[in-house]
Amino acid sequence: MKTIPMPLKVEQNKIWCLDQRILPNREEYLEMKSLEDCHRYIESMVVRGAPLIGFSALWGMVIWLKKSLSEKREDFEKACDWLVTARPTAVNLAYELESAKAFLAQLFDQKATNSELVAALEHFTVSRMDKLDSDNRKMARDAYEELLRVTNKKDDFTLMTICNTGFLACGTTGTALGVISTLQEQQLLNRVYACETRPYLQGARLTTYELDKLGVDHRLIVEGAVSYVLEHEKIDGIFVGADRIVSNGDTANKIGTSNLAIIANHYEIPFYVVAPISSFDVSLANGSEINIEMRPEEEITTWKGERTCAQSTKGYNPSFDVTKGELITGIFCENGMIRPKEGKKQLIETVTKGLSK
Amino acid sequence: MKTIPMPLKVEQNKIWCLDQRILPNREEYLEMKSLEDCHRYIESMVVRGAPLIGFSALWGMVIWLKKSLSEKREDFEKACDWLVTARPTAVNLAYELESAKAFLAQLFDQKATNSELVAALEHFTVSRMDKLDSDNRKMARDAYEELLRVTNKKDDFTLMTICNTGFLACGTTGTALGVISTLQEQQLLNRVYACETRPYLQGARLTTYELDKLGVDHRLIVEGAVSYVLEHEKIDGIFVGADRIVSNGDTANKIGTSNLAIIANHYEIPFYVVAPISSFDVSLANGSEINIEMRPEEEITTWKGERTCAQSTKGYNPSFDVTKGELITGIFCENGMIRPKEGKKQLIETVTKGLSK
Repeated sequence: MKTIPMPLKVEQNKIWCLDQRILPNREEYLEMKSLEDCHRYIESMVVRGAPLIGFSALWGMVIWLKKSLSEKREDFEKACDWLVTARPTAVNLAYELESAKAFLAQLFDQKATNSELVAALEHFTVSRMDKLDSDNRKMARDAYEELLRVTNKKDDFTLMTICNTGFLACGTTGTALGVISTLQEQQLLNRVYACETRPYLQGARLTTYELDKLGVDHRLIVEGAVSYVLEHEKIDGIFVGADRIVSNGDTANKIGTSNLAIIANHYEIPFYVVAPISSFDVSLANGSEINIEMRPEEEITTWKGERTCAQSTKGYNPSFDVTKGELITGIFCENGMIRPKEGKKQLIETVTKGLSK
Repeated sequence: MKTIPMPLKVEQNKIWCLDQRILPNREEYLEMKSLEDCHRYIESMVVRGAPLIGFSALWGMVIWLKKSLSEKREDFEKACDWLVTARPTAVNLAYELESAKAFLAQLFDQKATNSELVAALEHFTVSRMDKLDSDNRKMARDAYEELLRVTNKKDDFTLMTICNTGFLACGTTGTALGVISTLQEQQLLNRVYACETRPYLQGARLTTYELDKLGVDHRLIVEGAVSYVLEHEKIDGIFVGADRIVSNGDTANKIGTSNLAIIANHYEIPFYVVAPISSFDVSLANGSEINIEMRPEEEITTWKGERTCAQSTKGYNPSFDVTKGELITGIFCENGMIRPKEGKKQLIETVTKGLSK
């Protein structure tokens, strides 16, 4: 395995962000020196991936505390609120900053010194990342046990994935790619097929970068080749991440995921979602209630500014799709595996076991 | 409707080929002045699409006859054999040239003059193109009647297609896109969703060009969006072409076609193949006997020479897939519609009805 270039590095009191915009061709770190840097890096997608955005924001607030020398709760919360504007629709960004506010509230009220506040927030941030990492690893272990059960194999697993769900997106082991990297650590993998993930090519640009660094034998495919590969290449399981999972197990994820699940079911290949409890939204009954973001048509109609289709052509670019719970063999979260086919009740019980802790 | 720029034009005794390598951004015709031009245009893909390659070769042989002033069968057949080397695996190229040889054999034996040979081959070539065009139109009429039956609608059809099957590929109305253009002539279409057709983007580059020229309201989508579009956009039917159809209805076509058929079946949306009898190969019992061409991995791992994934990444690039006959609602050929679900016998009878004529 090569050295893993973590997307967020804390070294000698400096914070470094891997510039993900120029991967996989160039590896460059940018120092995050101020809250303004943090805002800009999030907004311009130097850092991306829901969990990583949240963690980057926490480190941004550590820097802000150090530089401002502030001891005022009001100032801290104002700075947090401004940072959220970097990507207003990123749920994790708001979630982590609200958690930080809540965590520091008592210290502010107790008139803690600036250095006490800095130390506390650093500790909080590291704990959050450690917690996600150990959660990722638990999900991966559960996924391994499931693979043992369903395949009657002990190793030599061949898997498929879509989009980007590894260390670049999370700053930790990762969700679907966390399963892959955990199996790879134990030399249990044969090969991984990575979907290129049009139109934005997260699979080609980022997942192959992760797989390369992890030393995983892998093949890049176009989404159109999914049926061919599932029919001919003895795939043991498909692992994907999730943007949102609702009460009946319906799962919103990157466009192309629902195709994968339908084709996997056709060939009777197990299809798994790997996602922390923070991705669940049990306030919604089913996937039709999830609002799907339409992205700019230029992502389809152009390549690096050059038009690839007729001038009059309109692109139609839903960014996510919803995979029906009934097509999902299992969802792995911190509290174990949920089988959506077994219905809503098991899902909600498993998830709330975590929430009520 | 805009003027349709036919890919092969015969004007005032000159033959012009639309340079398909630079579509859709530029429309330029290259004159075919010699057999060498013809060979080069086929080899370098100025002309592409199975039927168009065959017709271009016939016109190339007309030019050769005119220029060489030859009246010798042996010379003619030698020139044909050299032309086949331009794309040795293109079935239509060899097929049309063999037909031309057989057609002229008697005239050569009867010591026909060069100008008689030229006139005969011109007539033969025009007849071949007219025959394919009328066949295309018959298939399109049959497809329209099928749509009337299955949708209970009279017009306002919303269709989906993949790859490129229209006038650019055929030099005639076209197969799957021929259905679309025929419905468009009668103002019976609502909209067409065209799959971009990764990795080579035939859908984006060529099909949108055809749809634009035909004045069809259309949307370009990535292959990953197929499930989303089929679920949400009230698609009346999916129409695709075919590279080869075998005895049980299994159909080899551009990679991504099998995905489409599986997902269409999941949503109970009719899935149709449109292909002339020359695409049938009833010597094979089922699709697993079809040899699938693997294309260079660079089509996936690079874009215009620039790498889009990690340096170590290998692309896996099957160029075609096989759609199971049992997933195909109907196959339209010159002799009507075949329902592969009804089995091998109907397919072979329908096809041989044509072959035995």
